[in-house]
This record gives sequence, C-alpha cells and structure tokens, in this order.
Amino acid sequence: MKKENSEIDEEDMPDTFKVVTIDLETADFTVVMNRGDARVLGLRALDRVKVSRDDRSITALVELTDSVVGVGSIGVLKRGGGILKVAGGEEVRMVPAQRPRSIEIIKKIMKGLELEAEEIQVLTEDITNHLLSDVELAAFVTATYINPMNNREIKDLTMSIVKTGEVIDIDGEPIYDFHSIGGAPGNKITLIVVPIVAAAGLLIPKTCSRAISSAGGTADILETIANVTLPSHRIKNITETVGGVIAWGGGVNIAPADDIIIRAEYPLAIDPYSQVIASVLAKKKAVGADYLLIDIPTGENTKVPDMALARKYARDFIEIGDGIGIHVECAITYGGQPIGRAIGPALEVKEALQVLEGETPSSSVVEKALSIAGIILEMGGTHENGKRKAEEILKSGRALEKFKEIIRAQGCDLKEISSGSVRESRYVDEVRAPKDGYVASINNRSIVKICRAAGCPHEKYGGIYLHKKKGDKVRKGDLLYTVHSDHRRKLQTALSVSKKLEPIYIEGMVIERVPRDGHHII
Amino acid sequence: MKKENSEIDEEDMPDTFKVVTIDLETADFTVVMNRGDARVLGLRALDRVKVSRDDRSITALVELTDSVVGVGSIGVLKRGGGILKVAGGEEVRMVPAQRPRSIEIIKKIMKGLELEAEEIQVLTEDITNHLLSDVELAAFVTATYINPMNNREIKDLTMSIVKTGEVIDIDGEPIYDFHSIGGAPGNKITLIVVPIVAAAGLLIPKTCSRAISSAGGTADILETIANVTLPSHRIKNITETVGGVIAWGGGVNIAPADDIIIRAEYPLAIDPYSQVIASVLAKKKAVGADYLLIDIPTGENTKVPDMALARKYARDFIEIGDGIGIHVECAITYGGQPIGRAIGPALEVKEALQVLEGETPSSSVVEKALSIAGIILEMGGTHENGKRKAEEILKSGRALEKFKEIIRAQGCDLKEISSGSVRESRYVDEVRAPKDGYVASINNRSIVKICRAAGCPHEKYGGIYLHKKKGDKVRKGDLLYTVHSDHRRKLQTALSVSKKLEPIYIEGMVIERVPRDGHHII
Repeated sequence: MKKENSEIDEEDMPDTFKVVTIDLETADFTVVMNRGDARVLGLRALDRVKVSRDDRSITALVELTDSVVGVGSIGVLKRGGGILKVAGGEEVRMVPAQRPRSIEIIKKIMKGLELEAEEIQVLTEDITNHLLSDVELAAFVTATYINPMNNREIKDLTMSIVKTGEVIDIDGEPIYDFHSIGGAPGNKITLIVVPIVAAAGLLIPKTCSRAISSAGGTADILETIANVTLPSHRIKNITETVGGVIAWGGGVNIAPADDIIIRAEYPLAIDPYSQVIASVLAKKKAVGADYLLIDIPTGENTKVPDMALARKYARDFIEIGDGIGIHVECAITYGGQPIGRAIGPALEVKEALQVLEGETPSSSVVEKALSIAGIILEMGGTHENGKRKAEEILKSGRALEKFKEIIRAQGCDLKEISSGSVRESRYVDEVRAPKDGYVASINNRSIVKICRAAGCPHEKYGGIYLHKKKGDKVRKGDLLYTVHSDHRRKLQTALSVSKKLEPIYIEGMVIERVPRDGHHII
Repeated sequence: MKKENSEIDEEDMPDTFKVVTIDLETADFTVVMNRGDARVLGLRALDRVKVSRDDRSITALVELTDSVVGVGSIGVLKRGGGILKVAGGEEVRMVPAQRPRSIEIIKKIMKGLELEAEEIQVLTEDITNHLLSDVELAAFVTATYINPMNNREIKDLTMSIVKTGEVIDIDGEPIYDFHSIGGAPGNKITLIVVPIVAAAGLLIPKTCSRAISSAGGTADILETIANVTLPSHRIKNITETVGGVIAWGGGVNIAPADDIIIRAEYPLAIDPYSQVIASVLAKKKAVGADYLLIDIPTGENTKVPDMALARKYARDFIEIGDGIGIHVECAITYGGQPIGRAIGPALEVKEALQVLEGETPSSSVVEKALSIAGIILEMGGTHENGKRKAEEILKSGRALEKFKEIIRAQGCDLKEISSGSVRESRYVDEVRAPKDGYVASINNRSIVKICRAAGCPHEKYGGIYLHKKKGDKVRKGDLLYTVHSDHRRKLQTALSVSKKLEPIYIEGMVIERVPRDGHHII
C-alpha cells in the first residue's frame, strides 16, 4: 500500500551523476559527494556506494563536501577513476551499496573464531577488489596480529592470495627461491646469494619487498643502482636467460591482496604472524618455487626474539609449504646485531659489492651469505659441501660477473659496476665512544629508528655505518659509527635520535665493583 | 663534517607553503601535498607533518597529488583549516613530524599489556587533539575489543576522557541520571522516564547518543520532533529551570575523545567492553551525576546475551563508578525481543507519546519505563514504592506536561504535541504470517538490519511496527509487522532483507512429531 502524504516524488531520487575527477590517492576507492545529494540518498560519510559506467563498476566509500563538487556531480578519485575509465564531465550511475561480507568475517577473527576456507576466499577477493576501507583493513591486521590464524587458515589464505593474482610460469625446473623474514638490519645478503646460486646454474627468480618498518627491504636497496619494478614477462625472461633476477614483488600483480595488506600494516608498523607466513609463501608459490629456503634471523630486538618462536616459524613454514606443494627448509640465523657494517640502501649496496669483489668488510656478511647460498646449492643436489662450493663461486669472481649480468638486465646504467662507484651521502657525522670498554650490544631497533630518522628507506643515501661491532674493544674517543643523509635536517634529527637511544652499549671491563665487605662477589 | 658532492643546496628545502583550502571532511587532520614537494621532503602518503601558522599548529597526515595543489602549495582540509584559521592564499609553515607516542601505546594493548595511567592520559589527549589517523583509531578499538582493559585502566580512561573535555556544572544537587547500554531495539523509554523523574522534582540532565549500529539512539529518535544538539549552557539552563533535558551528548564538548572513539567504531560496528563503560561513565561524570542508574538489556541477540556478562557489567559499572565518585545502581532488564512495538525514530516518538497520553500500546514499554523511573525515585529517597509513585505521576498527566515543557525548551515547534501529530512514513508495506502457530522469537539483530535497510536512523520515518510479539498466537495471513520508509527503494530493500532474515519465528503448536516406534518422545 502506498501512502499519499508524499511531498517529493521518490522517482526523482537521483542516480546519475556528472564526474569531476580528483587527483588524490587513497588506498581504498573513494568518491566525493555533495552533502545535499547525500541527504536525499540517506548516505553519510564512509557509507558505501556502487558507481558504474557501462559494464565497469566499483564499490566506493563516500566523503562529503559542500563545495568541492556541486549537487548532481560526483568527485571520483584516482584509483577508482582508473578502473571506471571515466573523464571529467562524463556521467556515471551511483546507488547506495551494502557493506561487504568481509566485515562480518573480520569480526569473526576479532572474536577468535576459526574461518572457513570459503570465508578466507571472500575476504581475499574483497581485499583484492579494494572493497575494504583503510579502517576495515586496519581492523583486519590488528585482529590477526592479536588472534593469529591456525595453519589450516594460513594455508587457505596463502592459496587464496595466489589465486587472486598473476602467476609467473618460468620455463625450466626446478625453481629455487629464498627469503629472509627480516628483522635484522643490514641484511643485504640477497645481493650476494642470488648471483652465487644463479652462477651455479640454478634458476632463482627472487622477488623481494620494500621496507614496512625497517631501514630498507632488498627492493629499496637494489633500487639505488637498478630498476626493481619489472613486469612479469621481464622477471620470467631474465630468469630464463640469466638464471636469476632480483625484482620488487609489489611491482607485478602477483599476490596483490598481500600488497594491500602490507600497505595497511605500514601506518601501524605491525607484521602479524599469520600474514608473515602467507605473504612469503604466496609470493613464492606465484613464481612457481619448488624449493625454498627461509632465513629466520633470531635474537634480541629482531622480529623473532627467541629460539622457541624461531622454531615455531620454521615448523609452520615447512608444514604449510608441504600443504601447497613447496619443499621448504629453514635456517635460523643470528640476528641479534646488524648483519655486516652498513645499514641503509646505498651503504648496503656498496658493502655487498665489496663482498662480491672479494673484500671482507665484515666477516658476518660473508659468512651468512655463503652459508645460505650453500644450503640452496645442497637443496639443488650438489654433492660437495654447499658452503665450500658457494665460496669457490664467490672467490672465482663468477658471482660478481653474474651480479653484473643480472643488474644490467635490470637496467643498471652505471658505466662501471663497482663498490667504488656508489657515491657517498651529502652529509655525514660521526659518533665516538664516550668511554673505554667493549661493545656489549648493538640495539637493532635503535639502529633502525636512527636510519629512518635519517630518511631511510626513501632517502637512498641515508643510514649508518658501524665501525665497531659486538665484542669489539673500544677506547674513549674511538669512532663507533657514522650517520649519513642527503638532507642536513634529517641528519640532525638522526643524530639527536642517536644521542637519545645510544644504540651501541659499551660496558666497562669491570662489570661490578665488589665492596670491601665481600658481598655481591660475582 | 660536510661533504661537498652536493648538487642541490639543502638550505633550499621548502618549509613555507601557500594554502589551498579543500572542503572535504575527514576524521583526522589531512593535508594534500604535491608529489614533487613530498619527494624533496622525503615524505610519503600517510606520513605526518606539523603545519603551523602564528601560534596555532596541527599535526596532519599527508595525502599526495600531482595536480590538486602545485609545488609550493598545500591543500588544507576543513577540520585542520578551522583550527589553523587560515584562508586560501595565506602562508603556513610545514615540517615533517614524528609519529605520536600513542601508536606505541596502542601496540601495548595489542600485546595484551596493562597501560599505566600516564599512558592512558597521553592516548586520550592524542585522540582529543586529532593526532591519530582513522587507521590508528581502528587499530585502537579493534585491540581493546579483543583485549579489554581492566577496571583500573577503565577508571583512568574514564577520568582522562572527562578531563580532556568540557564539564557542565548544574546549580543544585544531587544530580540524577540514567543510561541504557542499548542492544534492545525500540527502547524509547528515556522519553518517558526523564519526564517522570523531573516531574517528581529531581534534576536529570540526560545526555544521550546516536546510533552506532542500532536503528536509532535516543538522540536520533527525539530529533524527529525537537532539537537535541544543545550548547552546554542550554543543557544547564533547561535542567535548572525545567528539571530535565534530553540532549545529544555529542553536541557539546563533553568527553570529545569518546565521540572520536565512537566515530571510529561506526564503520566496524563494534562496541568494545572497556569503551562501553568508560563512554557512559565519562559522559555522566561530565554533567555532574551523583546518582546513576544503568539499564542493562539482556537476552538473545542483545549486546549482553547472558546473565553472567550482564552481572559482570553491573559489578564493573558499580566498582568503576565508586572509583570516580558516582553512586551507580544497575537494572538488568529483559531485552530478548524489541521493547514495545515501534522500532525507528518517528515510530518510537509516537509510541512514547501514546504512553505519556495514558495509552498502553505495549505493556512492555509501560512496565519497563515505570520500573526504571521507580528505581531512580527510590535512589532519590522516596519513601513509598518508587514504581507506584512513577505510575501515579504518569497517570496524573504530569509526566506528559513535563515532557511538553522539556521539548518546548528544546525548540519543538509542533503546535500540538501529541501522538496523533507525528506523521506516518510515505511508504508502508505489510508482512503477514505464512502459517498458523505462535511467535516463538523475534530476532533483534534481524529487526535492526531491516530498519537500517529502510534508512534508519537517518531516515526518521523508516522502521518497523510489530503487530505481534513473543508468545502471541497467529493464524496464517495475520498481520505480523509493517515496514516503513519515506524512500520507496529503501522500503523495497528492507522488504527483501526481511524476506531473507524472517525476524519473527513462528512455531507450530506441535513442537516435534513423535514417530510410531516411540523414540524421541519429549
């Protein structure tokens, strides 16, 4: 029954709007709407609408305005406009939309309930299709940080992430891969391991990530001298011709859901356990890895502070790997202080090149790179001791040659690829020992905070170079480390952070003074 | 030591920008920056900057653009512009800023650690000063939803929320107050309780809320016929002269942190335990409540599904109330089906007016309102039976007169205040019983979903009117409920949601068929 006390005719309810393009970037799809239209449609800020044009459509979140767009117009932001393929002045259809089902699924995670495979698939699809707002994604990562998924859920999450993205099918098999779950600053070993493995004749299409909360991911580091944003056919092609590649995983459409999840983690600086595993395995599965070595840096102030958690990660990686058809092995490595001496993109490239050139600027970098490469060579069926074989390849100069081949294929335009050709930062300052003693500890988190204050990872020439490492003897006034940046103000900020945090802890040789009465003798 | 290989002079790093005002509303402070400037400053999307003008400043989040503002300009959004008091073309200073300390504090909550009073104060101040982004607020509410605060933390949260806002100091004491924690749809009893209590001569400055996930908070409901957005001096003044007021708590600057938290909860549709308690008590403390009655609706599909949780709420409200100097009592009420027959703003106003006029459209509304008012009268020291006294005030017409006084003071411009003068919705449809039987249950959540599909709470005339309630006998074809909306399309959506959810469950008189072999006899 229709009531007759109507003043406005409902049929006039608008559903066609003229597009105003707005060049702003948001992680989700956003449209800007006049407050007057919103009132008529019964919409409020952050409600959802379906915007369509021909056969293309997006579900977007509403922002309100009194003046940016007028009544009858709709502001379409960059990301959504790209999918709709609309230009200013064109018309789109817009109607109120329901919340995606994923919101209820995220609530189940909050309540600590187990998700079914189908629910995980819906969630991953909604994430991939940009149907979740930043707020909802934040709730998702926070909830899984607090209530981690079980292995069955992580396996389903991994496969749903693989399925919603592109897959790179490299000719030739088996495919080898390796990944460090991070947490130890200065971990530039990928730049050494990949060329050694490729020089041995194995295929290693290494995709790597950018920093979330660190001073630089491998992608940020290598980007200093080469292009890491490669289309998938280039990743395939370089691997097939050169044997190895080092590309940014986020530069191709493999595991796009994972990139969206990682971007949501950035402002919160958290890495939920379940996502760490799903993220790594999905990206490796998408490039067709058959054999995978996971490096788990462990120690004070890493992501994995104790051996118990490291072993849990190792077990879960192996079990979930089995579930998706990847033979996984894990290496728990010492990450309780930075790996090598350099932390920060350009500084790390330089140090890696020094190692490839046969120098040993830090024995820990050489040691770790050779051990990791050695295990991969053994997974590849080498009959000799893998580490010894890796050392042989490094010493022969074949790893350096392979590295040059790889980065030339990745568009490196340095005339001479050498550690000497990597320039220094514009500003450098020194921090010296305030007293005699020895280096009792170097705090990873403090080192990273200083590097980030110096501008890392975006500021390629920012960072820290350690002149002393754990166990080293120091005399008052000795150089402990240098801080680098191309921006004077950032350098100053980094120095004041460094002064506050004192990342290198020096203990006197006398650990405790023993009073005359003889108590407290240690 | 300064390196000399500089190409750009650092001193040129820009820090003064020309303002372009952008009329967009975001919960946090946002500025829009040209990608070129961001590159020079080493900033990326969602990083923080401090923007200042004279002695005013805000810490804002960065959004990037290629075209909305040019190099050297900065787009300032509504909320931030208001605080900075800048107009387009004026200059502001902008420098990169650190993350607020609250982010580490939120991480402590994620890890299940107890917060110190000082940390809670910092968190509340950062929230009040709009220093946290939507994403960080989402992480905060998600984390406290999963890891609730303990009573000491909730007490500190409550007092820090009170402290960061305005306090209304009403002449005369004691001050009485009451609050329903919600969850039972159709709970319009405030419109009856407040006039009864005020008519008895007690002071009751009732602040109430808008819906987060319900079909309508008391503020949404009363707004149909009166102004609920009152400045604090009006709340004070109306209480002192009329004895009672029913105002939207979010319309004044009491407990502003709470409003921001509630807004962050809206897209996620969650009410974390700790915040429910802190929110209620902070708002009551801010209006100077000495005696407070909390109504805890309990039953299937309410916020508080079982008696154990209801008793926990009651104990915690009383304990935390003691800690902040409010004498709290609690009433656990039955909320397993809607209160009364009307759900939706205008429909509820009409039903409340019918009760005040002496009708009994539903015995549950009258019963509940009189019980609640009665307890408050007893807290106020009445020597007779409180409920009987409340009934006497209602029957005498004094409650209706007081209600008229209150809403006239709140700008109600209806010539005649009566249930008959509340208009019907433009569209109504009926839902009838598909079979004979009796009403076994009415699902609160389904009722709310249908009302929200019909446009509630923004759509004032949307909602449901129940013609049958739990226990009623029905014959096939009997009218079960009507669905209302001013928008035909929303009515259709609501009807299709209603068809899917079947909120009223009818059971045949035979509960289980007994097979011939005699098993399963009940």
